[in-house]
Amino acid sequence: MTVLFSDEDVAAAVDAPLTVAAMRDALLAAHEGRLIAPPRASAPLGGGRMVLTAGHLTGEWYGFRSYDTFGHPESGQLVVLHDAATGAVRAIAVGEELGSRRTGGLGGVAVDALARPDAATLGVVGSGRQAWTQVWAAAAVRPLREVTVHSRSAARREAFAARVRTELGVPARAVDSAAAAVRDRDLVVLATTSTTPVLAAADLAPGTHVNTVGFKQVDRHEFGPDLLDAADLLITDSPAQAAAYAPPMLAAVEPYADRLRDLGAVLAGAVPGRTGADQISVFCSTGLAGTEVFLLDRLARVGASAR
Amino acid sequence: MTVLFSDEDVAAAVDAPLTVAAMRDALLAAHEGRLIAPPRASAPLGGGRMVLTAGHLTGEWYGFRSYDTFGHPESGQLVVLHDAATGAVRAIAVGEELGSRRTGGLGGVAVDALARPDAATLGVVGSGRQAWTQVWAAAAVRPLREVTVHSRSAARREAFAARVRTELGVPARAVDSAAAAVRDRDLVVLATTSTTPVLAAADLAPGTHVNTVGFKQVDRHEFGPDLLDAADLLITDSPAQAAAYAPPMLAAVEPYADRLRDLGAVLAGAVPGRTGADQISVFCSTGLAGTEVFLLDRLARVGASAR
Repeated sequence: MTVLFSDEDVAAAVDAPLTVAAMRDALLAAHEGRLIAPPRASAPLGGGRMVLTAGHLTGEWYGFRSYDTFGHPESGQLVVLHDAATGAVRAIAVGEELGSRRTGGLGGVAVDALARPDAATLGVVGSGRQAWTQVWAAAAVRPLREVTVHSRSAARREAFAARVRTELGVPARAVDSAAAAVRDRDLVVLATTSTTPVLAAADLAPGTHVNTVGFKQVDRHEFGPDLLDAADLLITDSPAQAAAYAPPMLAAVEPYADRLRDLGAVLAGAVPGRTGADQISVFCSTGLAGTEVFLLDRLARVGASAR
Repeated sequence: MTVLFSDEDVAAAVDAPLTVAAMRDALLAAHEGRLIAPPRASAPLGGGRMVLTAGHLTGEWYGFRSYDTFGHPESGQLVVLHDAATGAVRAIAVGEELGSRRTGGLGGVAVDALARPDAATLGVVGSGRQAWTQVWAAAAVRPLREVTVHSRSAARREAFAARVRTELGVPARAVDSAAAAVRDRDLVVLATTSTTPVLAAADLAPGTHVNTVGFKQVDRHEFGPDLLDAADLLITDSPAQAAAYAPPMLAAVEPYADRLRDLGAVLAGAVPGRTGADQISVFCSTGLAGTEVFLLDRLARVGASAR
């Protein structure tokens, strides 16, 4: 029996603590070699491509996420979960929520592992779906005292601040520049569609942790090399995927590639995380393959019992 | 709103005339360049692969079928239909029925286009799901007078004959050899899992049309080169896919490749079909990509009105 989950189902059942816990387990499973996550596969369809990112948690499940690059307004993503013992399709999620929540969850794990224990203020640049799930997940791992937000649209950044106040119960205000949003913040989220830097590293206070979820390739990036130069810690959720981008990720080429570390390895204690309160840490989010299926597996377990 | 179809839903709504009509339209659309059907894409998952075959009917829809190669008992296939204007996921089918019915439908189109108009007897080697949908579709395009069936299991071939009598209302009997099944038949279906020839071309009467849906590559094939040598017409539903097999299809290498023709081109009148009652025609089924989505689109139309 296949269960179909809509965005509404996902929103009702997949909260931030569950998501962050699932992504922590996924990153550790990948680090230990139990989560197989090959490079994406795609088929050209004239004007767009159908893309598949697959994953396999040995002995548990396998599955994939599909999405396309046509750029249609409602282009639905699919996440599909197969039982590893029988092959049966256990669950399918259609929409955007599962994917953006898992990206938020990966960001939440990064904040928990890399930010100062006392981090309490967050500045976010961007006010879209990805910006939201980053703040949503960060609030699950640090008790936030204030959120500042900037995006180009005054109406959208005001709405974002209002949503933070209402849904997360955290004081929040919209500000009129990216520099103002990130100034003296313990945590910074960059979640824009910008292809050029939206802030300077000099805008950041010592000790800040940064999550970046927008463009970060050598030819287009929402932050510049100055941020990577300023960073004491450079971390990603998938060094393999970071290196496989075309063109490559800024943090995956010299002089940064040698310093780029795997978040799963930090979680496992195999490489050090933050060692000082004044260090700047930067998490370059790539969206480890297979993690959407990992989250769907958790949803299918809680969703099945809730129905 | 995404509609989810199970095998039971497909069985209830997708009859043979609808399927054959859909596959005829799909083959013509591919011939005219309106159906974009790229080579399959796959992702290795350790012990098996996740495979995606995609299609795009310009201006109408795009989508894909996914399946895996783990060989699990219930390994579910998915067929997914996106609206080409909005990108929304209109429908998903989970299971085996849609895929095997579309393969049957392609075989039905081949029979209709290539067999003699008065063809009325059918011999089938194999008694599985693919064998069934071939006979099911053939019965929709020719009034069958008798079906003979052979497969290795006496119990299964007897059950197959009984099903033909019950569900198709056609006299049918099981026989104890492949040669006996195909002797003096107007239509022959090969739908086995055999990697070595199950019959000799000499077993066939002049004027026979053959549909082959099992192995047909150079290193493993349910029929031998003698059948291709005996054939006056060699037809496939996708010359591009036939050539892309690894290793290649027997009919896609010399001395046969130059004679292999596209079924869509025959339907369009661009290349000749059968020109004599004594000719032997052979249809090498490859499963044109995108045709499962084509059929799901038809199902979504009739299914939506029936609900």
